[in-house]
Amino acid sequence: MVEAPETLEGWYCLHDFRRVDWARWKALPENERAAAIQEAVEFLTHTEQHTDAAEGSSALYSVLGHKADLLFLHLRPTPDELNALEGAFARTRLADFTTAAYSYVSVTELGLYEAQARGGATAPEEMRNLPFVQARLKPQIPARRYVTFYPMNKRRGEHENWYTLPMDERRAMMRSHGTLGHKYFGIVQQMITGSVGFDDWEWGVTLFSEDPLQFKKLVYEMRFDEVSAKFAEFGPFLLGVRVQPDELDRLLR
Amino acid sequence: MVEAPETLEGWYCLHDFRRVDWARWKALPENERAAAIQEAVEFLTHTEQHTDAAEGSSALYSVLGHKADLLFLHLRPTPDELNALEGAFARTRLADFTTAAYSYVSVTELGLYEAQARGGATAPEEMRNLPFVQARLKPQIPARRYVTFYPMNKRRGEHENWYTLPMDERRAMMRSHGTLGHKYFGIVQQMITGSVGFDDWEWGVTLFSEDPLQFKKLVYEMRFDEVSAKFAEFGPFLLGVRVQPDELDRLLR
Amino acid sequence: MVEAPETLEGWYCLHDFRRVDWARWKALPENERAAAIQEAVEFLTHTEQHTDAAEGSSALYSVLGHKADLLFLHLRPTPDELNALEGAFARTRLADFTTAAYSYVSVTELGLYEAQARGGATAPEEMRNLPFVQARLKPQIPARRYVTFYPMNKRRGEHENWYTLPMDERRAMMRSHGTLGHKYFGIVQQMITGSVGFDDWEWGVTLFSEDPLQFKKLVYEMRFDEVSAKFAEFGPFLLGVRVQPDELDRLLR
Amino acid sequence: MVEAPETLEGWYCLHDFRRVDWARWKALPENERAAAIQEAVEFLTHTEQHTDAAEGSSALYSVLGHKADLLFLHLRPTPDELNALEGAFARTRLADFTTAAYSYVSVTELGLYEAQARGGATAPEEMRNLPFVQARLKPQIPARRYVTFYPMNKRRGEHENWYTLPMDERRAMMRSHGTLGHKYFGIVQQMITGSVGFDDWEWGVTLFSEDPLQFKKLVYEMRFDEVSAKFAEFGPFLLGVRVQPDELDRLLR
Amino acid sequence: MVEAPETLEGWYCLHDFRRVDWARWKALPENERAAAIQEAVEFLTHTEQHTDAAEGSSALYSVLGHKADLLFLHLRPTPDELNALEGAFARTRLADFTTAAYSYVSVTELGLYEAQARGGATAPEEMRNLPFVQARLKPQIPARRYVTFYPMNKRRGEHENWYTLPMDERRAMMRSHGTLGHKYFGIVQQMITGSVGFDDWEWGVTLFSEDPLQFKKLVYEMRFDEVSAKFAEFGPFLLGVRVQPDELDRLLR
Repeated sequence: MVEAPETLEGWYCLHDFRRVDWARWKALPENERAAAIQEAVEFLTHTEQHTDAAEGSSALYSVLGHKADLLFLHLRPTPDELNALEGAFARTRLADFTTAAYSYVSVTELGLYEAQARGGATAPEEMRNLPFVQARLKPQIPARRYVTFYPMNKRRGEHENWYTLPMDERRAMMRSHGTLGHKYFGIVQQMITGSVGFDDWEWGVTLFSEDPLQFKKLVYEMRFDEVSAKFAEFGPFLLGVRVQPDELDRLLR
Repeated sequence: MVEAPETLEGWYCLHDFRRVDWARWKALPENERAAAIQEAVEFLTHTEQHTDAAEGSSALYSVLGHKADLLFLHLRPTPDELNALEGAFARTRLADFTTAAYSYVSVTELGLYEAQARGGATAPEEMRNLPFVQARLKPQIPARRYVTFYPMNKRRGEHENWYTLPMDERRAMMRSHGTLGHKYFGIVQQMITGSVGFDDWEWGVTLFSEDPLQFKKLVYEMRFDEVSAKFAEFGPFLLGVRVQPDELDRLLR
Repeated sequence: MVEAPETLEGWYCLHDFRRVDWARWKALPENERAAAIQEAVEFLTHTEQHTDAAEGSSALYSVLGHKADLLFLHLRPTPDELNALEGAFARTRLADFTTAAYSYVSVTELGLYEAQARGGATAPEEMRNLPFVQARLKPQIPARRYVTFYPMNKRRGEHENWYTLPMDERRAMMRSHGTLGHKYFGIVQQMITGSVGFDDWEWGVTLFSEDPLQFKKLVYEMRFDEVSAKFAEFGPFLLGVRVQPDELDRLLR
Repeated sequence: MVEAPETLEGWYCLHDFRRVDWARWKALPENERAAAIQEAVEFLTHTEQHTDAAEGSSALYSVLGHKADLLFLHLRPTPDELNALEGAFARTRLADFTTAAYSYVSVTELGLYEAQARGGATAPEEMRNLPFVQARLKPQIPARRYVTFYPMNKRRGEHENWYTLPMDERRAMMRSHGTLGHKYFGIVQQMITGSVGFDDWEWGVTLFSEDPLQFKKLVYEMRFDEVSAKFAEFGPFLLGVRVQPDELDRLLR
Repeated sequence: MVEAPETLEGWYCLHDFRRVDWARWKALPENERAAAIQEAVEFLTHTEQHTDAAEGSSALYSVLGHKADLLFLHLRPTPDELNALEGAFARTRLADFTTAAYSYVSVTELGLYEAQARGGATAPEEMRNLPFVQARLKPQIPARRYVTFYPMNKRRGEHENWYTLPMDERRAMMRSHGTLGHKYFGIVQQMITGSVGFDDWEWGVTLFSEDPLQFKKLVYEMRFDEVSAKFAEFGPFLLGVRVQPDELDRLLR
């Protein structure tokens, strides 16, 4: 058995993708629709201010294409709080006109492949308090206009198997991978969440940027990087545009 | 043909995942909803006390994400009793506002790879009466707050094929796997159920803990263990939070 | 091109899996429901007595889990008779409260790998009249309480390919496979149906037993047998409990 | 780059598989149902007589199992005519009680692997006028009682890749394949349609016979033929029974 | 890590595939249907004239088979404009009678494998202004009658992996691929859009022609070209026929 890397975890994360049943929504009388929008604005405002929990971050995005219409993104300290947010949304009137399209359950994660490279030989629990580590584990959703999300695995093929490689080889590949990510520092902000034991893929990747083209540039460039070229398996990709509470009315009218 | 391991089996197990149709449920008049909740509380209480069968165990969980809302977990001596519980739930009013999202049919199993390692060279039928074996075959669902479930296969690839390995190699890998599981003793409780001949994967794994992060730690660490790294194929993962009968009202209002 | 084995075929077989829409069914007035059950009892009784055809066999099972609620199993001399039974069921009132969940179209088959081993060097058309062959090709559904069904293929991988193996190797593996099946003689009754050209997998396997645990024991033991370990690809597994006509009322109330 | 074979194409082909919503259909008042059947009989009669186009052929089949209830099979000179037939059916009353279950868009094709073997060294455009070529490219749907349909690909595996084999090897395998098909001459009639660029698989295969068992015999025997054993990937198989216009009433009552 | 090719991008592209609920649509009173068609004609006319954006191009196609009925194809400078078009369509009355069947989110792309071959050693940002580059990045949807769309990946297999090949090998294969495409110059017009980071496959390919048979000829011939034969993985294929605004009435009556 090869050595498993240590990881630090922070907040639990729910990507809640929803489809809107526009025909039924449009059939709702104008005043009921206005009330439902007002209630949704309040729901979104409260979740963005995480009035349901001491810590956390939330945001809403309008998603392109048929896979979903809306993405409610929530970060909270416990799964219970995410579960409660699901229930709270289900109680809104708007929810009656949506269906669950996809979701992802994960937790912010810092693999110590990388942290050890950046923070030196510190013990994991000391590293947890370093500012850059805290920022990774308890991230405020950045005020960038575009988001893209995809889940992924590391391949366990019959010939190419990430999980049987020696630690050193994995560390070297992760370092090269991290270097490529840093090229986009300030342009694309990455949130890596782990979902082993929680959801169907091993990680979720959520990227934020003011320029959606940079998502393509970054992910394409990474695809030629050894760790992605040989070992990455990708799930669905979903692209969204941020919706502020005061934009909900325009979106849903 | 290589030697197949002996196995001991105990109770049949049904994981019954359900989605709630919130819009229709919320449209139900308040008094009908209260009556339906009361009936569901009684259904859950009776199944937890297995008043339908001499032995068994049941519990309800609230599931995160779009894959399901509820998990009814039932253990009973026969498939007939599980089938009857499906029918009994279908007769409740609450059931009319749910749809089947996923399910898993299996039976508690102890592979004698492991039992032989722990219990010595005892014959299978004598082992059955050992206390630790009874606890594995007729498990009471533990009072832990979190659950995660996933089905899995052992790989039968063209190059890496579990089912053509000599018994000794398989036993050695299973022993190492068990050792890793014991690291989490008292932190994560495991229930292994076999489903060859009953459902689409070969095993179901149900983990219970007070700390959901330990699910991730355990499954991730195991992924580097040879038997998982090379031979495990995983189905969907579903994460839930325990719901006691007296919490149903809060969940469904 | 390697030699293809000769096969004998008998009756066409339809596995018709159905889901019940319990909410709508329960909303039906009591007297209409009673009439629908009575009509279903008559449909089942007539199909079991194959009053629609000179020969055949039929049975109903209650299926565990979300994949289906009911399995109508029909054997008849021609596809036309199976098609007519589909139409006859569609005309019942009960059918209006069910949806098709899955199905399988096949024909009872005896691969002469095995028959040649058991019956000697007889020509195929002479073998057809041997009693054990007739029993395989025109099987009465046994009065066992439990059933399990799964479809399967023989692998055509890039390295392990059943269909390019010499006849002798295939025959030797099939003989070993048959020997293992005979270990369960009297405990598990097997019905092998071929579906090449008719449905999505190459064979259907339907097992009958008074002890469902023996399904697991048999299929698991076979998985270590070379022909299954290396060459079998399995579809979904569905487990059911026999429902006699006079038990339909209890099941559907 | 290896040489691609030349192909000749004829009529476009639509396999339009439909499910019937029996519950809603049966709820229709008797006189409306009779009118809808009459209209469907006229639709079918007109399409069989291809009154919508100068050339073509059409037929209806009743399909076994849950995958579909009906198959409308249409051959016409252009995709526009097929598209118009979809629209014409959508305008019938019967269509309101059906949903699209599956479909396949293709064009009759003669690979010159085979034609060159049968017709000698003629240039493709001269071959087009040979009677056997015309019969393949503009086929009248034969008056056989049974049909089976399946789409397929030639494998492009990492080790076994049809598309990188030299022309000579491919031609030799296709010739052997054709020889096997000729064994069934007069018993099973084959219609090969190409769908590269049109639908999800590379070819559709539609077989017609008076004896459905011969579908199984033919496809199973071919599976041992090298080109199928090593290079064929198969999609779903659907089996149907011919429905003449004057049988529609019996089918739908 | 091997070198990634540079790419130039232009307009964002949405393929919006829709199914029509014909039964509900036909049940709409004649005058409401006429008004809905008129509104849809205006929607289509405005999108074709890109009155919502300074630049862009749009078109509507009628799609063959069960996968979709309509394809709205939109090209615009930003994802926000595509998202707004989705919203604008959702607000039409016709949209209430459609459901999202499939979609694809991408951006027009010129891989500099090819551009460097055609434009010489110019720097990427200088190349952007070359007329043939502008025509590729900001394409007007051609007035051809037929369209076919399919998404694709470059394989990352365990043995054949595009993303680990040296740049020179990839360039040589892309050049050969381009040469084959040029054989169809004037007959089939290609639009290549990149979707890495945006949607589930790496590229979308949209082909336009007056002769749909040429789609088949081109894609089949390319399949024998090394880059496709060894490295292409294809998603669904969808074939459509152009619908001008003044043809909508005929299509939807």
